[in-house]
Amino acid sequence: MNPDILRQLAGISTATATMQLLKRGLRNCFIRGARPFNTEHCQFAALAYTLRFIPMREDLSRVEVLADPEYPPRKAVEDIPPGMALVIDARGDLGAGVIGDILAARLQERGVAAVVSDGPVRDAAQVAAGKLPVFCAGAAAPASLNVHFGADLQRPIACGGVAVIPGDVLVGDSDGVVVIPAALAAEVARDGAEQEQLEGFLKQRVAAGHPTIGTYPPNPETLQAYNEWKNTAPHRQ
Amino acid sequence: MNPDILRQLAGISTATATMQLLKRGLRNCFIRGARPFNTEHCQFAALAYTLRFIPMREDLSRVEVLADPEYPPRKAVEDIPPGMALVIDARGDLGAGVIGDILAARLQERGVAAVVSDGPVRDAAQVAAGKLPVFCAGAAAPASLNVHFGADLQRPIACGGVAVIPGDVLVGDSDGVVVIPAALAAEVARDGAEQEQLEGFLKQRVAAGHPTIGTYPPNPETLQAYNEWKNTAPHRQ
Amino acid sequence: MNPDILRQLAGISTATATMQLLKRGLRNCFIRGARPFNTEHCQFAALAYTLRFIPMREDLSRVEVLADPEYPPRKAVEDIPPGMALVIDARGDLGAGVIGDILAARLQERGVAAVVSDGPVRDAAQVAAGKLPVFCAGAAAPASLNVHFGADLQRPIACGGVAVIPGDVLVGDSDGVVVIPAALAAEVARDGAEQEQLEGFLKQRVAAGHPTIGTYPPNPETLQAYNEWKNTAPHRQ
Amino acid sequence: MNPDILRQLAGISTATATMQLLKRGLRNCFIRGARPFNTEHCQFAALAYTLRFIPMREDLSRVEVLADPEYPPRKAVEDIPPGMALVIDARGDLGAGVIGDILAARLQERGVAAVVSDGPVRDAAQVAAGKLPVFCAGAAAPASLNVHFGADLQRPIACGGVAVIPGDVLVGDSDGVVVIPAALAAEVARDGAEQEQLEGFLKQRVAAGHPTIGTYPPNPETLQAYNEWKNTAPHRQ
Amino acid sequence: MNPDILRQLAGISTATATMQLLKRGLRNCFIRGARPFNTEHCQFAALAYTLRFIPMREDLSRVEVLADPEYPPRKAVEDIPPGMALVIDARGDLGAGVIGDILAARLQERGVAAVVSDGPVRDAAQVAAGKLPVFCAGAAAPASLNVHFGADLQRPIACGGVAVIPGDVLVGDSDGVVVIPAALAAEVARDGAEQEQLEGFLKQRVAAGHPTIGTYPPNPETLQAYNEWKNTAPHRQ
Amino acid sequence: MNPDILRQLAGISTATATMQLLKRGLRNCFIRGARPFNTEHCQFAALAYTLRFIPMREDLSRVEVLADPEYPPRKAVEDIPPGMALVIDARGDLGAGVIGDILAARLQERGVAAVVSDGPVRDAAQVAAGKLPVFCAGAAAPASLNVHFGADLQRPIACGGVAVIPGDVLVGDSDGVVVIPAALAAEVARDGAEQEQLEGFLKQRVAAGHPTIGTYPPNPETLQAYNEWKNTAPHRQ
Repeated sequence: MNPDILRQLAGISTATATMQLLKRGLRNCFIRGARPFNTEHCQFAALAYTLRFIPMREDLSRVEVLADPEYPPRKAVEDIPPGMALVIDARGDLGAGVIGDILAARLQERGVAAVVSDGPVRDAAQVAAGKLPVFCAGAAAPASLNVHFGADLQRPIACGGVAVIPGDVLVGDSDGVVVIPAALAAEVARDGAEQEQLEGFLKQRVAAGHPTIGTYPPNPETLQAYNEWKNTAPHRQ
Repeated sequence: MNPDILRQLAGISTATATMQLLKRGLRNCFIRGARPFNTEHCQFAALAYTLRFIPMREDLSRVEVLADPEYPPRKAVEDIPPGMALVIDARGDLGAGVIGDILAARLQERGVAAVVSDGPVRDAAQVAAGKLPVFCAGAAAPASLNVHFGADLQRPIACGGVAVIPGDVLVGDSDGVVVIPAALAAEVARDGAEQEQLEGFLKQRVAAGHPTIGTYPPNPETLQAYNEWKNTAPHRQ
Repeated sequence: MNPDILRQLAGISTATATMQLLKRGLRNCFIRGARPFNTEHCQFAALAYTLRFIPMREDLSRVEVLADPEYPPRKAVEDIPPGMALVIDARGDLGAGVIGDILAARLQERGVAAVVSDGPVRDAAQVAAGKLPVFCAGAAAPASLNVHFGADLQRPIACGGVAVIPGDVLVGDSDGVVVIPAALAAEVARDGAEQEQLEGFLKQRVAAGHPTIGTYPPNPETLQAYNEWKNTAPHRQ
Repeated sequence: MNPDILRQLAGISTATATMQLLKRGLRNCFIRGARPFNTEHCQFAALAYTLRFIPMREDLSRVEVLADPEYPPRKAVEDIPPGMALVIDARGDLGAGVIGDILAARLQERGVAAVVSDGPVRDAAQVAAGKLPVFCAGAAAPASLNVHFGADLQRPIACGGVAVIPGDVLVGDSDGVVVIPAALAAEVARDGAEQEQLEGFLKQRVAAGHPTIGTYPPNPETLQAYNEWKNTAPHRQ
Repeated sequence: MNPDILRQLAGISTATATMQLLKRGLRNCFIRGARPFNTEHCQFAALAYTLRFIPMREDLSRVEVLADPEYPPRKAVEDIPPGMALVIDARGDLGAGVIGDILAARLQERGVAAVVSDGPVRDAAQVAAGKLPVFCAGAAAPASLNVHFGADLQRPIACGGVAVIPGDVLVGDSDGVVVIPAALAAEVARDGAEQEQLEGFLKQRVAAGHPTIGTYPPNPETLQAYNEWKNTAPHRQ
Repeated sequence: MNPDILRQLAGISTATATMQLLKRGLRNCFIRGARPFNTEHCQFAALAYTLRFIPMREDLSRVEVLADPEYPPRKAVEDIPPGMALVIDARGDLGAGVIGDILAARLQERGVAAVVSDGPVRDAAQVAAGKLPVFCAGAAAPASLNVHFGADLQRPIACGGVAVIPGDVLVGDSDGVVVIPAALAAEVARDGAEQEQLEGFLKQRVAAGHPTIGTYPPNPETLQAYNEWKNTAPHRQ
């Protein structure tokens, strides 16, 4: 994917991105339950690298499996390419953390863009103190083996009620994380940037006392005013 | 409603208000899932102005409907009288925000007292930075059309598991929002103020080492001490 | 219980404690839904003193019962020995607070170690401003009588999906609260301290750029490096 | 609405109706939690007449209200036109029945087409013994006042997670109930009848040992065979 | 308790019993999730004998505990007096059965009135084939130890969202099970019998074509007709 | 796998199988929410063939995909070997059926052993009338595309809260379905058969009036009686 597209997407809000997707008929793209852990470090756009957990079974979820370099949750930490976002299907289970402070530190060090999950994180205070954008369902002390078994990497997954296909684009900010199908990324980036410029203008109008009806969404008069403003505001182009 | 009653109610806590309602046999008056978005700006008392969402249907929840000045969620923003609180029935659905930053800014500008919902808000960081008291179920980027259709205004609604009738009084603080039937507002205000004065005295007693048994709730000796304190504490009257 | 064990346990994280329990075959020991109310005051280890609520019934949950010195929720506040933790089974009901500011102040004054519940707290802002470690499911204004009746004290309870037997050890930190069976407390304390020392070393290795595979969990080479470090680092012993 | 359309719709399955709606972009049309109470009497198609409950509040949900001829849940029973279906928004609350045996008997006697709700029914055995098609969420003994207050009639409602607008067409069978927007009823009826004829043919093919791939959905060869069969099977036209 | 009261209560429906309780201000008395397992054998009234489960913990929920004659779930089967109903608090957990066919057969043989739980039953087909009234949340194969530990007997419990105090009266029929506080049993029995006689009359009126308004609830004219009917219908007295 | 093992497993109940697994430390093996659709046709043992759904996304879940012979949900129907059981991960979503009557008929015709899912089935009446053992979460009319997208075949899945690995053994009866790891199948079959023989004897003892304590589980005296009975009951060997 053209890195410019990711850069542009990192500059638009998830509210804008979901509106662009809605206009294209996609309603089910926002990951439920993945809240930004540190609102200072939550803005990102990156390709999805997926990890999938299935429910714990005592014969599978043994502590020894952690030492297996092929065990997917551990392999993921070293194999995910820098710049991508690790997305973890935890089935919304709140009983165990999907990563802890050591793995988070390593992911940050490796240049990973973000960690996103519908499950919690352990060592919450330390993870929140780092700079890695983490979106999760709160904190839980137990290791993932308490309730999960790591099934595989880079398969389509469910996360927070939405589909994530490896290579989809994830965009995050303080509202949470939206999934953008790869094929739509370029147009969402382009139209989203335009939408944000328009909304910036509309916010000024509302702040100046205009009623929202006629302004948001804009009627023809407002649109004309916007176009004039755009033409006479060279710094916005 | 006598504005003095609202002023008095804005001065008592929701914990006090719910206790006064419990004493009158009302147990189901606290809106579940509506957390204060900004604890600096969460204390209010106001009459309820209601907006009701029903589930999304693709033939109804089209983006074009936003431009219709009669579409209830947009009409509400301009029609709610200043000083009232907008209460939104979102059926507890966490998949979409019920308002975003532009509408919140307009509601604040129009002098609305608060926004209360069992659904989330979009553009969370910007909304939280404003001064409008907002009580909601967290943040979600998608617009309401993603999961809702705006059904009507000023009808009785369900919000967070409780009934809200237009004209009920809402009182909010850092614990959340309580619904007070209009007919009970005056007596809750009066007896709530008295309860708060008493509890202020009891807190001093507990802080001074008195056991809670006999103090909270007060036995006759404690009540007598309270009455003496009240009579000799002219600044409290 | 030997107070040294509690002191040691207060020094290890809940992530470490749950891992030690997992190694002993215990997976279901972390209380779900009990979040630290004040992350400045959340680290503790203490014996469990239990209070159990059952659902409200109008003939039982009358306001008058609060004045009964034998009513369990009130008796608990005065009878729990200093240094113990009050654990409250609220069945995860979010509709009422299990304690408020006056009872929290009294518990703090009496030297109680912590309050832990799968239900919310009322007077949230005041409770959070105190120094008593409180772990709960958020804030709710109504008194417990709105949805509960106090059943008994010092019986086995369910809290956040796990069993708590009076005399179990509770350990809390910013991730939440773990329940350690009394019979396992000494070995969890001992092996947990060792685990934390090892993980401290591993964190340094990861920070220095070592891949997590081979480091966490440590392979024989890493373990040997750890043992050398331990032997030559007298300040750690 | 043309009664022929309702007659046609009563002859197609809800599986067929939802597929026709999906082809038109409508995915959220099946009422969750409304199971047929009596599979002998569950096939119907009728216009929706809506009743809406909001949560119980003790000052509203008094037994005396039942004697008020304007109380919506009672007024509905006498005012709903024969041939229409009563749809009741119970917010999925399982704690009280939305109707009991006396009201069900009256609705049957008045020629009502069906009762549909996401809440339970009381006097379950007697209601199931009647001939009125009832779709509900099981049985519960308490009257609706225990957990509800009747808010209004003939407003848009939510039922089982979907929108129901007065005048929408409801179609029910042993799978449950689907909501068809009035504007789409005619084409769903027409294309649904064609789909059922085709699927009847495909079932014969599958029963005769054809693999489903190429048969269901049909490839060009299968479609040609279908068209020939249709032309030579005059009884099907 | 006077056995006549239980006999009378066994003759009224749970719909009637809950209405009598509502008239006395009790709304939260119907056990959610306890469905009759065999509608041929579900009518009963009996005193409650309680068993309480707490969540499984691996050090407690060992198979060996089943051989301990003091283990509450096994002790209950032999200690519950004939004629009483065993009520089991399973916290609504659907992952394990609370009893199986052997224990059910023994309870039936010992003359126990019913088994009631918000959890499932194992060996469902065999249990349903017996004559013991069982109300439960479906079927599940695992033994209770898989998710529970038996905590104690004859303590107040929560079952299906309601309080059950040992000695309360349980009444069951095809709608489910209602809990009647012991102190109210006599008046509910008396007024419930009267209500059923009245409703029998009203059903005849509705069947004869009377509108429900004015009939149910009865207005003065209908009440007068009822009283006349009662006086001239000696067989009903 | 030795077909004798499957034959033996088909002869033991799921209650027995889960107890054998519990004795080996496996507690999480019973699929929640998969109820037998037709209790006449529910007993089976077979190897698991898995199908995995992820959440619907409008760009993926298009009707056209059904015609793709590689689309996993359709490919599964023709590729699953006779004698195996199709297990479908539907994330417990109740909004759409995972199969309908045509696919069920084809699976039955192809000699598939069973269909198991934590989602519902469409065309419920027709499917229930067939002889294919189906375990599901009720009925729902919409096609799977309404809420799902078919992700892949023969990967590890979650179903009803438990892990299912391709090649695991599934055993079903009227209680539901249990998952047996392949490596444990032989010993569960052997010890399960012995357990059933013992329990058959114990049932006779209980039916003859023996108290359950000392009988179930058996104490040494009961065990001795069992062994004598076994030796003198040649028809049982």
